[in-house]
Amino acid sequence: MNIPSDLIQNAVNEFSKLPGIGKKTALRLVLHLLNQEEEDVEQFGNTIMKMRKELKYCNSCHNISDDVQCSICLSKSRDRSVICVVENIRDILAIENTNQFLGLFHVLGGVISPLDGIGPDQLNITSLLLRATQEEVKEVIMGLSPTMEGDTTIFYLSKKLTPHNIKVTTIARGVAFGGELEYTDELTLARSIATRIPYENYLSKK
Amino acid sequence: MNIPSDLIQNAVNEFSKLPGIGKKTALRLVLHLLNQEEEDVEQFGNTIMKMRKELKYCNSCHNISDDVQCSICLSKSRDRSVICVVENIRDILAIENTNQFLGLFHVLGGVISPLDGIGPDQLNITSLLLRATQEEVKEVIMGLSPTMEGDTTIFYLSKKLTPHNIKVTTIARGVAFGGELEYTDELTLARSIATRIPYENYLSKK
Repeated sequence: MNIPSDLIQNAVNEFSKLPGIGKKTALRLVLHLLNQEEEDVEQFGNTIMKMRKELKYCNSCHNISDDVQCSICLSKSRDRSVICVVENIRDILAIENTNQFLGLFHVLGGVISPLDGIGPDQLNITSLLLRATQEEVKEVIMGLSPTMEGDTTIFYLSKKLTPHNIKVTTIARGVAFGGELEYTDELTLARSIATRIPYENYLSKK
Repeated sequence: MNIPSDLIQNAVNEFSKLPGIGKKTALRLVLHLLNQEEEDVEQFGNTIMKMRKELKYCNSCHNISDDVQCSICLSKSRDRSVICVVENIRDILAIENTNQFLGLFHVLGGVISPLDGIGPDQLNITSLLLRATQEEVKEVIMGLSPTMEGDTTIFYLSKKLTPHNIKVTTIARGVAFGGELEYTDELTLARSIATRIPYENYLSKK
């Protein structure tokens, strides 16, 4: 598309760098901002730059934080004997939304993936082992995606954690609530039969 | 969604003001920017603010422009006897992309819509009449949307222009190329029969 203005073209280019935003959507967003008041657009730009500049990461669990420690790590009502290991910040938000988990988190920043050049040293694993062995931690829950890379990471972490007498668990995999058996993939279905649970447990957790 | 950081929350709020972007998409974009280098995010914010601040509108046709007159109005290869009236800048971009029109444009900034409180005075109509009557203009093409408001605007403009011996035309309405007759709405189909064209014209324009 031939845009008769470098200012617009540059703004379109910046927007289309964002994930899931193509040239056409970018142009629509830019023309929308063009119709807004100048101070509103200033506020848009400044808020985003301030966010990137001032946001800190919790020095304990690597969650996003406005301070040295995040609100979850600082909270007095959290169970400090359980740590849930997740890949990224979005996973924390998703789990927090369920209101089901009251322990602490640890953000790995990814999973072990030799093909992408990501080994244990590129992840926040040293700080996890330090936390898990120094503090009063009894259980580490692996809240990682059920991919090959996720499973590799779980295997690696469990090898490191179990010698310190820490219970390693993973979140349950199986048929989703509301999901229909016949449309569930074979692997999930096979595993959900192999890892079946007693009906009493099913009832008590519901 | 409960986001444990005001900085992120503010950035999400700013992004979700944009059209077609909800809270979830906004969060995804914000977390993406968080992973970028600080100077890249600075550039993103500054480019957008600069665009809003410095962009001018052509003082002849009201198109976007980096200068007092836009590149189309300044071009020596354009046919100055034809002006195509459009609603907004996006329409100019769409028509320019077809490479079919070599005349000049005029951006109205909307269409007459009494229900929304938009009368002729809120649109760039005075400057259009001035251009059309002072310059060597022979034809004004109405490139407006085929809505009731669009038709009202065409009627109003043609009343103003025809006394000055200017030919007023509208872009053709009919069944779209590649569209199937049976799925075309009744009004369009009825009008496309009423305004049928000789086969020679059809062939020569293809």
